[in-house]
Amino acid sequence: MYRDHTCGELRISDVGKKVTLAGWVQKARKLGGMTFIDLRDRYGITQLVVEADAPEELVTKANSLGREFVIQAVGTVVERSSKNPKMPTGDIEIKLEAINILNESLTPPFTIEDVSDGGDDLRLKYRYLDLRRGPLQKALQLRHRICHEVRNYLDSNNFLEIETPFLINSTPEGARDFVVPSRMNPGTFYALPQSPQTLKQSLMVAGMDRYFQIVKCFRDEDLRADRQPEFTQIDCEMSFVEQEDVLNMFEGMMRTLFKNVLDVTIPNPIPRMSWFDGMDKYGSDKPDIRFGMTIHEVTSLAQGHGFGVFDSVPYVGAIAVEGAAGWSRKQVDELTEWVKRPQVGAKGLVNIKLNEDGTVKSSVDKFFTPEDLKAIAEAAGAKTGDLVLILCGEKRKTQVQLGTLRIELGNRLGLRDPKVFAPLWLTDFPLFEWNEEENKWDALHHPFTAPKPEHLEYFYSDRPEDILKVCANAYDFVLNGCELGGGSIRIHNPKVQERMFQIIGIGPEEMQRKFGFLINAFKYGAPPHGGLAFGLDRVCALFGGADTIRDYIAFPKNNQGRDIMLGAPSIIDAKQLDELHLDLRPVE
Amino acid sequence: MYRDHTCGELRISDVGKKVTLAGWVQKARKLGGMTFIDLRDRYGITQLVVEADAPEELVTKANSLGREFVIQAVGTVVERSSKNPKMPTGDIEIKLEAINILNESLTPPFTIEDVSDGGDDLRLKYRYLDLRRGPLQKALQLRHRICHEVRNYLDSNNFLEIETPFLINSTPEGARDFVVPSRMNPGTFYALPQSPQTLKQSLMVAGMDRYFQIVKCFRDEDLRADRQPEFTQIDCEMSFVEQEDVLNMFEGMMRTLFKNVLDVTIPNPIPRMSWFDGMDKYGSDKPDIRFGMTIHEVTSLAQGHGFGVFDSVPYVGAIAVEGAAGWSRKQVDELTEWVKRPQVGAKGLVNIKLNEDGTVKSSVDKFFTPEDLKAIAEAAGAKTGDLVLILCGEKRKTQVQLGTLRIELGNRLGLRDPKVFAPLWLTDFPLFEWNEEENKWDALHHPFTAPKPEHLEYFYSDRPEDILKVCANAYDFVLNGCELGGGSIRIHNPKVQERMFQIIGIGPEEMQRKFGFLINAFKYGAPPHGGLAFGLDRVCALFGGADTIRDYIAFPKNNQGRDIMLGAPSIIDAKQLDELHLDLRPVE
Repeated sequence: MYRDHTCGELRISDVGKKVTLAGWVQKARKLGGMTFIDLRDRYGITQLVVEADAPEELVTKANSLGREFVIQAVGTVVERSSKNPKMPTGDIEIKLEAINILNESLTPPFTIEDVSDGGDDLRLKYRYLDLRRGPLQKALQLRHRICHEVRNYLDSNNFLEIETPFLINSTPEGARDFVVPSRMNPGTFYALPQSPQTLKQSLMVAGMDRYFQIVKCFRDEDLRADRQPEFTQIDCEMSFVEQEDVLNMFEGMMRTLFKNVLDVTIPNPIPRMSWFDGMDKYGSDKPDIRFGMTIHEVTSLAQGHGFGVFDSVPYVGAIAVEGAAGWSRKQVDELTEWVKRPQVGAKGLVNIKLNEDGTVKSSVDKFFTPEDLKAIAEAAGAKTGDLVLILCGEKRKTQVQLGTLRIELGNRLGLRDPKVFAPLWLTDFPLFEWNEEENKWDALHHPFTAPKPEHLEYFYSDRPEDILKVCANAYDFVLNGCELGGGSIRIHNPKVQERMFQIIGIGPEEMQRKFGFLINAFKYGAPPHGGLAFGLDRVCALFGGADTIRDYIAFPKNNQGRDIMLGAPSIIDAKQLDELHLDLRPVE
Repeated sequence: MYRDHTCGELRISDVGKKVTLAGWVQKARKLGGMTFIDLRDRYGITQLVVEADAPEELVTKANSLGREFVIQAVGTVVERSSKNPKMPTGDIEIKLEAINILNESLTPPFTIEDVSDGGDDLRLKYRYLDLRRGPLQKALQLRHRICHEVRNYLDSNNFLEIETPFLINSTPEGARDFVVPSRMNPGTFYALPQSPQTLKQSLMVAGMDRYFQIVKCFRDEDLRADRQPEFTQIDCEMSFVEQEDVLNMFEGMMRTLFKNVLDVTIPNPIPRMSWFDGMDKYGSDKPDIRFGMTIHEVTSLAQGHGFGVFDSVPYVGAIAVEGAAGWSRKQVDELTEWVKRPQVGAKGLVNIKLNEDGTVKSSVDKFFTPEDLKAIAEAAGAKTGDLVLILCGEKRKTQVQLGTLRIELGNRLGLRDPKVFAPLWLTDFPLFEWNEEENKWDALHHPFTAPKPEHLEYFYSDRPEDILKVCANAYDFVLNGCELGGGSIRIHNPKVQERMFQIIGIGPEEMQRKFGFLINAFKYGAPPHGGLAFGLDRVCALFGGADTIRDYIAFPKNNQGRDIMLGAPSIIDAKQLDELHLDLRPVE
């Protein structure tokens, strides 16, 4: 061992001990003949000091140290004359007797500080240096702690972690598969799992009772910001359960995580909201309930006053921005432009100001009396001093626009503190949604989600209006406006499963080809079962109070799906292509 | 919840309780008007009974149950009149009041019993049924327990579990990579990791200090028996350590595993043997030390007696089989044929029998006096009543043949009890081996293994005889003749690393292309570091006392690399090939 203590553990009670530390030189500076060295490792920073009267060889060596040199340092723990209360080791320093340079270092291409001066690509290329920075060290430690707590909780609840294979066949999750050509079976391909969905259901058929896995999944999608082609799920499934059992089990898991990792107590029970309420009140299937500003329908109050824009649409909705009646014309105009951006897609924005002086002012003054406007504003939950913002159009679309505006205003008004945690179960999802483009029904979650038993009649109906009514025993875990996880009670009856595929237009042949084994498995005594999966990367980021998942992944890909450090993907040898019986097509 | 108790937990102290169980019908049988049902879940089997005087509807339902039906059963715990001491629940049974059939089952294609009547392929196709069998349920539970104990041990020793990416670039581990075509970067490929070797070393450069990961690795090799294209490693790395630190840390891990999982105490310390001793005494780099029968060189005693076969070779070696002097001519002839099989490759087998009556008998009587033969036999460790078996030829090759023969005899003589555990560290490996075919030096482990500091002079020598002398700070964990894990102290000095690549013939360009990032990383302050990896599948199999890893993997591939249940690999759509810019070559 090159050390007997880490750089994070020595305290005033250790004064007098002779110690050996090892780590990286964070910085070295001369001060009045003395040399001070900040020595860093994963556990902390300890100050080393070489006295002015130390042997010349030691002084020379201390002064030769560059940033990020790796050294072993031997000395005695002494009390500091000027203590640093910000550092856990700030009461002491090590009076050095020897320095052993274990490795030198070129000057790093960016500073190894909590806030670095390196650009994204440069830091990705030198990820092994970027990871030395405090926030990333903490991020990976947090991730480890979360995983360990998850495993302890699930183990203590009789879950077994079971590894499912990575070389499987194409799955139906909608996204594109990464494929792996098989050399031993020319012309055929494995696919990397988008999720272990069908495999974990097989494990329930196999009687494993309670399964979980912290597992990599893969989706070959065009990358949006903060998406990774490989990502990690906490994947779980239980047998002989109903929705309530699953919610209780994983509510307990999240409560334990918050308590043990962050020492945060979350509400007990976690609030629940139906998907319909989420859309109606928050314009979102992942409502951020850290703040109000909920959406109110004001259609009946808004219509019939001769304002054609309102009169010609099925839905008018409003939100009230607290204390914003005094916002300037310019501010409101900017908001109007903001909602008209294609990302939001509203046609315009109507406002009502309930001024502090009791007057009412609106962009549609000429169609409405002050009393009409007050009635609308009150219906939107506004009081004196508030600004009411109104959008209209098709119901769900308008609600989503209002929800997007609400989140933007929440950000601008500082209502979305990352240190405040507001978890929520979203439940009662529709089972199907109509796919306009392909003129067919899609499963809103996935085709193994069970309809609510009380909706089976609609499920077997041929009328579209009935199909739309079918709700699922599905649930999402939402935190601060992010979907952290979701799942459902699954179909365990082969007849229900066949009907499901029939509705979403997967014919018997495709069903057999893609899911034959699972359909077949259900014929041999499948237990009632359900489960869910959490997105680990996002859980870590939210626990860490961060916007981006990238810092919580040791070696992330960039937005082109490339690992800049490794230089992957890369060309392969012609011999490898030969063995795989593959030819590259020329790229135009 | 469909149950309030599992099928494994009710005891005599629960008598009188009203309970609800759920599970699979293991069997149902009528006996004198009563119906007995064995209800099974992951936790055990509980006997249900429907009395002769139960309501007719209940009796009818009980009699309609087929094997593997999934039912919910409600009843009262009663004491059994004829108890079954073999079952933990054998003191009680459930007097049923209601049965709810949750799912029916077709008749399974093989019996769901500890020993099944199904063939390998059939059981792989219906893996979800095979996994219901007791031994496989236990195997996956054991695997979970081992992983959980590993994680607890490493967590308590400050290791962080850090996920490394699966979509990387080609690595140098010698075996063939599975590759993944990149759609976003046409003409290029990711590779699936054969091990996270370079990544975990990057994490050490990154200052993560102690890393581990239980992680899937991939090798596209022609499958030998009991090899899988995807397999799992317990992958570990530590900074600021020497070999002794690594051995102590993982000796502790294995001791904890044996104790907590099997309640077995292994030797403290675990014995150590040099690679040279392993070869000389056991003809193996993974000696099974559960039994003796070690190899002894008898070259000098065997030569110079006019027996040309011995006189013309550099090495003669012998093992003594205890109490086997009485073996028949036929038995010995069969052994001779056995060693001449191409898998062993010996030219012939010489024997000496030290008969109980004091006489000596040998297949080479005419060249040796009885005294000569006795001297050889004694040198081989034989005593009266033993059989000495002798092979000769090139030294290492002959030792390996003798080692193979030794293991075979150990099997035949029942000396290899799977319930006896004899761990061993094998150390002091040569750093290089000569590759006859390609006329070049290979790294015996991998090219990141550090030479012993005291051998650096040989390491920088250009003379082949010096290169051969270089030993590595490398070590294997061997259990019962299996290599369960191995690792080394790594090179952290960029100059040493470059010399390493120079010796094994990886030029600067190939080095830069394949390992450039790591070579580069070493220039920015790499700490001294080392680690190792255990093969989890094999650890589980040995802990379970099994010969094959397959039962310890939930969904294994067959020997053609196929997942028979999933039907993977399979053909993919032309559209997918288009997107990947790939063409299939016609297969001749």
